[in-house]
This record gives sequence, C-alpha cells and structure tokens, in this order.
Amino acid sequence: MKKVKVAILGATGAVGREMMKILEERNFPVEELHLLASPRSVGQKVAFRGQELTVELACEEAFEGMDIVLGAAENDIAERFAPAIVKSGAVFVDNSSAFRLDPNVPLVVPEINPEDVKNHKGIISNPNCTTIISLVAVNALNTDSPIEAMVASSYQATSGAGAAGPVELMEQVDALREGRKPEVKVFQHQIAFNVIPQIGGEAYEGYTSEEMKLQNEGRKIMHLPELKVSCTCVRVPVVRSHSVSIVVRTKEKISVQRARELIANAPGCRLVDDLANKCYPMPLDTSDQDIVFVGRIREDLTSDNGLNIWCCGDQVRKGAATNAVQIAELLVK
Amino acid sequence: MKKVKVAILGATGAVGREMMKILEERNFPVEELHLLASPRSVGQKVAFRGQELTVELACEEAFEGMDIVLGAAENDIAERFAPAIVKSGAVFVDNSSAFRLDPNVPLVVPEINPEDVKNHKGIISNPNCTTIISLVAVNALNTDSPIEAMVASSYQATSGAGAAGPVELMEQVDALREGRKPEVKVFQHQIAFNVIPQIGGEAYEGYTSEEMKLQNEGRKIMHLPELKVSCTCVRVPVVRSHSVSIVVRTKEKISVQRARELIANAPGCRLVDDLANKCYPMPLDTSDQDIVFVGRIREDLTSDNGLNIWCCGDQVRKGAATNAVQIAELLVK
Repeated sequence: MKKVKVAILGATGAVGREMMKILEERNFPVEELHLLASPRSVGQKVAFRGQELTVELACEEAFEGMDIVLGAAENDIAERFAPAIVKSGAVFVDNSSAFRLDPNVPLVVPEINPEDVKNHKGIISNPNCTTIISLVAVNALNTDSPIEAMVASSYQATSGAGAAGPVELMEQVDALREGRKPEVKVFQHQIAFNVIPQIGGEAYEGYTSEEMKLQNEGRKIMHLPELKVSCTCVRVPVVRSHSVSIVVRTKEKISVQRARELIANAPGCRLVDDLANKCYPMPLDTSDQDIVFVGRIREDLTSDNGLNIWCCGDQVRKGAATNAVQIAELLVK
Repeated sequence: MKKVKVAILGATGAVGREMMKILEERNFPVEELHLLASPRSVGQKVAFRGQELTVELACEEAFEGMDIVLGAAENDIAERFAPAIVKSGAVFVDNSSAFRLDPNVPLVVPEINPEDVKNHKGIISNPNCTTIISLVAVNALNTDSPIEAMVASSYQATSGAGAAGPVELMEQVDALREGRKPEVKVFQHQIAFNVIPQIGGEAYEGYTSEEMKLQNEGRKIMHLPELKVSCTCVRVPVVRSHSVSIVVRTKEKISVQRARELIANAPGCRLVDDLANKCYPMPLDTSDQDIVFVGRIREDLTSDNGLNIWCCGDQVRKGAATNAVQIAELLVK
C-alpha cells in the first residue's frame, strides 16, 4: 500500500483528535501528517506515533502536496477551504454537512456504498453521525428487501455537540450536586437530568436540520430516492454514543429470525439481542468502539412489513472519525 | 360534597406519598385518612393537613369503614387485599397493573373516559404512567378522527421505578464523579450517563410488559379495540417526568394546524410548540405538575394521515397519584 500525505482540517476539535487516534490505531499508511487549525490553536504540540507534531495554520497554501485532507471542521470552514483543497489535487474527505447533498459529491458509508467513492471529483462527504449509525444497523435489511420508510427517535449523546458537550454536562451535574445554578452555554437548555427534543434549527415543516438528515442522506447512501423517514432527534445526558429506536418498513416482509441473521452477518454490526438476559445495545457498552450494536429486534405491531430495532454506536468514532478514515482507506487501496 | 374516609395502601412509597400531597393540594373532602403499609413502616409519623398521622399495618381489617382505598402498592399486594377491600364496601382505586385489563374493572383517565367510572364493581384501575401521559396528549386527535396506530419511543425518568430510582441515579453520579465504581441495584445496568432500553420483563414477541401497556391499556381507555401500537420503552438518566416521541396515525388526515388547536384546547394538556424560540416540552419543565405538555407537532413524513408529536408529563403525579385522586373525585361527585 502506498504511503500518503494527510492533513486534518480542524485537528484540535473532538472529531479531529479522534481522527488522529484512528489513523494510528488502524495503522493508516501515513507518510506525513499535518494538523491544521485556526490561529488560536497554532503551535500546540500533539503526539502522533511517538512523534511530536505542531499544529499549523489552516490556510490555502497548507494543502499543497497533500494526498488526502480529512475535514473535521464546521460547514463555513469546509466551504472556505474546499476550492483550495481540490485545486491542490488532494481528496477532501469532509465531515461537515456542507457538500453532503451535492450531486457531484459521493456520500459514503464504506459498509454500504464503497463503490460510490470512485465517482468523486475531489470531495467525498462523510454522513451525519446518527445517519451512519442507523444505516449501518438497517442496511442489512435493505439488502434483503428495499426499505420504504423509517420512523426514528434518537437518544443523542452530548459528545455529538463537540468536545464542549460532555464538559457542559459534567459541569452542570457538579453544579447541581453542589447546590449551584448550572450554566447553559453549549445546549439550548440544561442537559443534566433532562432531555432536549431539539438538535439543529428548523429545516423543513417543523423538522430540524438533524431530523431531515436521516431521510435525505439515507436516500443518497442507500440509493433509495423514494425513502421516507420521520425522525425526532433528542439530546440525552449521556457522554458518548448515540442510540436510535427505529421502525423500519420494507417492501417485502422480513421475519425477526431472518433480520437477526442478516444483522449478525452485516459488516460493522454486532447483534446484541437477548432481552431475557438483559443484553441489548447501550451507550456505555458501545463507546470507544467502531461497531454498531443492534438489538431489541421485534415485529412492528402497526404494519405488515415492519421491524422495530434499537441500535447504538459511538458517534465520534463510527459516526464521524472512523468512517472518514475508512473512506480514506478506500482511496489508497 | 360529602366527606369520605380514605385509606392509602402502600402509603410510604413514592406514589403513596404523592397521593397524600395531592389529596391535600386538591382539597379532597377527606373525613379520615389512613396510611397503610408493610410492618417495617408501621409507626412512622407523617404530616397531613397540619395533623400528625401514624402509619398503620396493611391488613384485611384495616379497610373496614373506608369509602375509598387508593392503591399505591405492587401487583401482589393489590391482589392480596382486593377481596377484603371490595368486601368492606370501599372502592379500590388501584395504581398497580393487576386488574387493568380485567373486563369487570374500569380503566380510567378522567380527561378521556370519566363515564367508565360508573361501571365499577368495587375496583377501578389507574393506567400505566407512560400510557396516561401519551393518551392525554393524543386523545384530542382521537376525538377528531379515530386513532388507528401509534409508533412510540419513550424517555422514562428514574422516578418511574419508585423512590429508590432517583436515589440510585444520584448515588451513581456521585460515585462516578468521585472515581468510585457505581453500584447497580434498582435498574438492570448503570443508569447514570447511560440509557437502558428495557423496562419490565419480556411480555409478547420480544416486547416488554411496559411496551405492551400503551397498546393494551390504550385500547380499553379510548374504546379503540383495534388500536395498534409499536412501543419501545427506554429508561433515561432523568429524575422525574417521562417524555414520549409518538407518530400517531388517524383514520382521516388531521392537519398540523388543527392538531395544535385540538391539543391547545384539550383537558389536561398544554401546547408548548415553538421550535424557533426553543420552546417544547422537557422533563425539567413538567416535573411537579399535573399537566401534560405537548409540542414538536409535525406531519408524519412516512404516512398520509400521520402526525409526529412529543409529550412530557410528571409520571409520579399525572402518571400515577393525581390520576388516582381525580378518579376518587369522580366517585364523590
């Protein structure tokens, strides 16, 4: 495997730091790694494979000579630097939502649509975290009979809001336990001992931007242009790993037994489904892992061809950083 | 209004204590109040309307002369004492699930089916907490067009497991913040910073007992024998108040606008639905109240006649104690 020059754009955020860790863990063939960030992080020292790297300024010139740029920054930064990255000849594997629905940009979950990578024109988008976790869980069903619709309710961890999310949760918990008033900065409301049914702003007919992603990105990733999804995204006081309760309706009926077999054999999935022994996916068990856990598989009692499932996955890893590195692996193959 | 002699069976538990508080708050016409509990609580002193009451032993003789017995005990206790209560001539308003589906026992949410009270033969059941909260939220839609099906995912507070639930949550939080190993006693797994997709044991085809209640109790309360419900019940690290994400499918289409009007005018409901201003129901805002908050009302994107809603209510109060006292109020009217 050839060695490649890699830059991480937004290297000091939660996803950027996880990308470094995963490049190291998966022994990605890095020839050179450049950590790019905004002026306030420039000069920070970060260890990578026993070497000390210095955070450099994210600027247009920084991408020259790179083969792959892993994007771990917000939409505005991704949009600002995308032209320079493409011009430099590097492939931009971007975790922001800026280009996900652009018809010229493949949107890839390597377990689902790896072949789409080859259609890139310089940019490949990494899907939304809840979308990746949900689709890895349900795609095995889709290979058996096309998915027509999903009703999903999410239980999203504070780490989905970046490194400051879990910090705010813990600060609020400590404040409340010590009788102080909790400060609200990152989330819309107090998240400690609460749940907040809003992630993102209003996007479509009362649905938030986060809620529309499972439908719109799901259509593109699974090549199901008619897919219908009703989603409710909820923040919960969990540190890490998102959970999703999904009713999946398929064209033809899939039995619970068959669904269990399909999911047990699906890439990136682990079947954890033994209610009698209290075994099912939980955020605590899936954190710091790349596998999506799937369980509580039952027939949907409201439709003829539906299944009820519960899945959990680490959204900083498989929901973001790992998925991006897997895309990079497809590029160097 | 005539004054009545009331006993609370299981008076020292979370729901029993709340029943006392609510009898006082609502100025229920109590002539005498007897607090009945197991031997280990006998002799405890409890304040009621400025008087000190002593907890008495729950035994068959304790019900003689009572008009109403409010049941706040588990199924086995309810089953054990029901014959003696009925024989004594008192009406047993029972919060356990023991008699809820018995065709001789009305199952009542006063905002929905108050007229069913008059069919009692000595026992009236108080529905499951998640069922009460969900049905108070959706019943207004049902009055416009019959509800055919619901897909529900719950976010249930630790207080649903009794007084020991929130204590365990806080002990685990403190242990984790101090670097100690959290103890697990009340819940199946650690609940602090986690979510647990199991409430109750397996009851039907992989669904738990808690998950089947919304369908089975919902059919009886709303007089909809064909109602279909797919439910996933999940415990979340919240102290008090359950939340439920529901897709409701009705026979005829109800517009979002019409649903908002119906819910705004429904008894026991408050419409809190202004995403742009970050207003929606949350457990923190609904705790220690009797009203079910309803918001995030959107068209279901997966069906022609569906609505997506989010509701929250205090399950110790409206989900249990208040609903029981409201039934008692119907009895003394």
